[in-house]
Amino acid sequence: MGSSDSIIPEFFKEISCSALELQCIQSTIARLDLEKGDILLSEGNKVEHQYYVSSGCLRTYFLDTSGKEYTIQFAVKDWWISDYTAFFNSTTAIMNIECLRDATIYKVSKKDMDALFIEVSQLETFFRKKMEGAFSSFQKRILEGLSLSAKERYISFISAYPNIEQSVKNYHIASYLGITTESLSRIRKEITQK
Amino acid sequence: MGSSDSIIPEFFKEISCSALELQCIQSTIARLDLEKGDILLSEGNKVEHQYYVSSGCLRTYFLDTSGKEYTIQFAVKDWWISDYTAFFNSTTAIMNIECLRDATIYKVSKKDMDALFIEVSQLETFFRKKMEGAFSSFQKRILEGLSLSAKERYISFISAYPNIEQSVKNYHIASYLGITTESLSRIRKEITQK
Repeated sequence: MGSSDSIIPEFFKEISCSALELQCIQSTIARLDLEKGDILLSEGNKVEHQYYVSSGCLRTYFLDTSGKEYTIQFAVKDWWISDYTAFFNSTTAIMNIECLRDATIYKVSKKDMDALFIEVSQLETFFRKKMEGAFSSFQKRILEGLSLSAKERYISFISAYPNIEQSVKNYHIASYLGITTESLSRIRKEITQK
Repeated sequence: MGSSDSIIPEFFKEISCSALELQCIQSTIARLDLEKGDILLSEGNKVEHQYYVSSGCLRTYFLDTSGKEYTIQFAVKDWWISDYTAFFNSTTAIMNIECLRDATIYKVSKKDMDALFIEVSQLETFFRKKMEGAFSSFQKRILEGLSLSAKERYISFISAYPNIEQSVKNYHIASYLGITTESLSRIRKEITQK
């Protein structure tokens, strides 16, 4: 048997638990290996899991009735991803999750997590803090969406997701910023010409 | 002395606690009565509290360097409000909170709350769930900001905040939707003419 550290994936390493608690956590986590192009979650399906990204890159996107895509979130190493409105309310997804670069992820179900919070109270604190960070970043994004120009939003995006541009297509970024790919090209040209 | 129920404000009524725990919670809550026009929080100040709205109406807004306002959140009865990015990170506010209609609110400091979570674990669960709901609504708002027309965003707004239009000015709503007051008037006219 390996050490406790090697059993628990890196995402819980900040928590100090007893051996029994570690075992309890470990039994609820399942590893998934995804390939580029895999669809992890499709609109209309029940959302029972959230996912921790250990490597690779994924995105959550919404597809409107005219076939236009809107990217809500990218997730790279150490990010969590799901259709959170559906996950927290145990309803069906309105969004899709696509693998953009071969990924290793870990899934945890809501049911298991709610039970774990009772068994291992440090986990609830851990997730509350994660949630606070995610909530802050959403508040920042709403503010930026209202107050910043497309160019300023692009600059903020590349600072929030450094190096992500190697993994994603131009239309993914454009659909995250709410602009056309032509506008994105123009903005990039403006920045490199400076 | 009144019953425990009358001591604890309505926002904690969903939690079942011992008399000692109730007393412990009660000691950390302070009531504030605000008048229309009062500024509860100003940009640049340290953010140590979040606020529960018992009655009245408040809004969080951002003021850019050209003096333009962007409304991030309205809060009416049973909503919580703060500059959450600053609150969770214990930094200074980049936003302002203004009272739009005479209000009774309750303030809780981050320091007291973190201590309370250790004393009364049900409180941590309570706030984690509140946070999940708020996070979902922010995810929805980001999606709507990207995918809906101004008219659709207005319809979603009045469904999320029914009756709020009596308490707020047109430019508050316009600055929440990211449109001009002229566009807001046009949208309202279109809807009433149908």
